Amino acid sequence: MKLYCIGIGPGGVEQMTLRAVRALERCDCVAGYGLYLDLIDELIEGKETIETGMTREVDRCIAARDAARDGKTVAVVSSGDAGVYGMASLLFEVCADDPAIEIEVIPGVTAACAGGAVLGAPLTDDFVCVSLSDLLTPWAVIEKRLRCAAAGDLCIALYNPGSRTRTAHLRRACDILLESLPPSTVCGIVRNIGRTGERVALTTLDGLRDRPVDMLTTVFIGNSRTHAINGRMVTSRGYRGI
Amino acid sequence: MKLYCIGIGPGGVEQMTLRAVRALERCDCVAGYGLYLDLIDELIEGKETIETGMTREVDRCIAARDAARDGKTVAVVSSGDAGVYGMASLLFEVCADDPAIEIEVIPGVTAACAGGAVLGAPLTDDFVCVSLSDLLTPWAVIEKRLRCAAAGDLCIALYNPGSRTRTAHLRRACDILLESLPPSTVCGIVRNIGRTGERVALTTLDGLRDRPVDMLTTVFIGNSRTHAINGRMVTSRGYRGI
Repeated sequence: MKLYCIGIGPGGVEQMTLRAVRALERCDCVAGYGLYLDLIDELIEGKETIETGMTREVDRCIAARDAARDGKTVAVVSSGDAGVYGMASLLFEVCADDPAIEIEVIPGVTAACAGGAVLGAPLTDDFVCVSLSDLLTPWAVIEKRLRCAAAGDLCIALYNPGSRTRTAHLRRACDILLESLPPSTVCGIVRNIGRTGERVALTTLDGLRDRPVDMLTTVFIGNSRTHAINGRMVTSRGYRGI
Repeated sequence: MKLYCIGIGPGGVEQMTLRAVRALERCDCVAGYGLYLDLIDELIEGKETIETGMTREVDRCIAARDAARDGKTVAVVSSGDAGVYGMASLLFEVCADDPAIEIEVIPGVTAACAGGAVLGAPLTDDFVCVSLSDLLTPWAVIEKRLRCAAAGDLCIALYNPGSRTRTAHLRRACDILLESLPPSTVCGIVRNIGRTGERVALTTLDGLRDRPVDMLTTVFIGNSRTHAINGRMVTSRGYRGI
C-alpha cells in the first residue's frame, strides 16, 4: 500500500518539481485543502478527490489512509513543502499502527524559500521558521521562540502571521522582537507567493507591526547582516573581496 | 540585462521545479560549482559554463555578472535553494552598483526539506537552519545560535556539519546541545540527498556526536515533540484526535 505526501510548492504546476508531478500522475485519489487542489487542477482532472476544510486535517489524513487500504494509490498534498507545517507528520501519526502502508514524502519549495526569492535573498544567514498560529502551539512557546531568534541574531520567516481571528499576533510578535532588535531592522512581506495577485513590500520592524497580514502572507525579518539593495532584501553571507 | 539565480534542488533534473528547468533552457551561459553542474548536465549541454572551485564564489558571481553585461542570458546555479546558503545574496552584492541588471531568483528545494522528506517529517514544528561552517561566521556566533535553538525547543537542521578540515565541529555542536537537551533526543542523518548513494540513519543526540559527516551530509535534531515512528523521524504538529 502506497501513500504519497506531496509538497506542491507555493503556486501552480510550474512551481512543482518534476518528481512531484510524476507522483501525482500515478495517483487515483488526491486529498487536500480545496484551495491547494485548485492550484493543480490541470494535474488531477478525473481523479477522485478528498477535500476537507482548513481545520479538518486529521479527518483528511484518515480518509487518505482508508483509501490506501482500499487499494488506491493516494496522494495527500500540502502547499509549499510537505514537512514544513504540512501534512507529512500527521500522516505518519495516523498510519503509525499500520506499517504495511509505505509513506513516500515528496518535498516541495516552502514559503520561506519561495517568498525569500521574491524579496531577494533574506535567509542567506542562519534562520528560523516560526508559525504565529497558536491553534496547536501555546502562545507562550511562540513568544519564547521569538526571543530566542532575536538573541541568536537569526533571520526569521514567520508563517501564518495572521488570520481573521488572529489580527494582533504580528503586532505582538514585533513588540517582542523590538525589545532587543533595532526598529530599523529590514523586513519584508510577501502575499500570494507565486500565485495570481502576488504582492511584495519591504519595510522595517517598526513599520511591520501595523501591516495587515493573513494566512496567505509570509513575513521576513532580517538580522544584523540584512540590508536593502536596489529595493531587494538581502542578507549577506559574509564573503569578502566583493 | 537578465541574471537568473537558480536553486536546482538536492539532486538531478527530476528534483528541479518546472520553472527552474525552463529558465535554464533560456540561458546561454551557466555558472556553478562543478559538482552541481554535473547533476544537471543533460540541461546545459552545449551551453557556455563558468566553473570555479568551492571557495571561489565571489569570482564566480563576478564572471556571471560580466557575462550578463556582455549581453548573454546567464544563470548562476546553487544546489538546494538559491537563497539558503546559496549564491543569491552574493549576486545581489556583486551587482549592487548596476541596477540595470535584473536578477530573478528561482527558488528550489533546500536540504532541510529534501533530507527531512527522506527521514520522514522532522521539521513540522518551528525549526532553525544553522550552518556549522565557520569560514564565514565566527564559531562563537554558531555556538550562541545552537544554545538559542535548544532554549527555544526548536527543531534543528545542520548544514555543512563537517569537512576534511572541520572534523570536530559536529561533536562540539552536540556537546553544546547536550548541556540542555536529553541524550535520547531523536536525530537523523542524510547523506547525498536525492542523489546516487543516498544514505539515511536515525540516531540519538548522544549517538550523533561520534558520527562521521561531511559537506554532503545534512543533520537533523528533533525537539520535545519528535519521536521515531516505524523507523521514520517525525515531529508532531500537535493535532488532537488522532
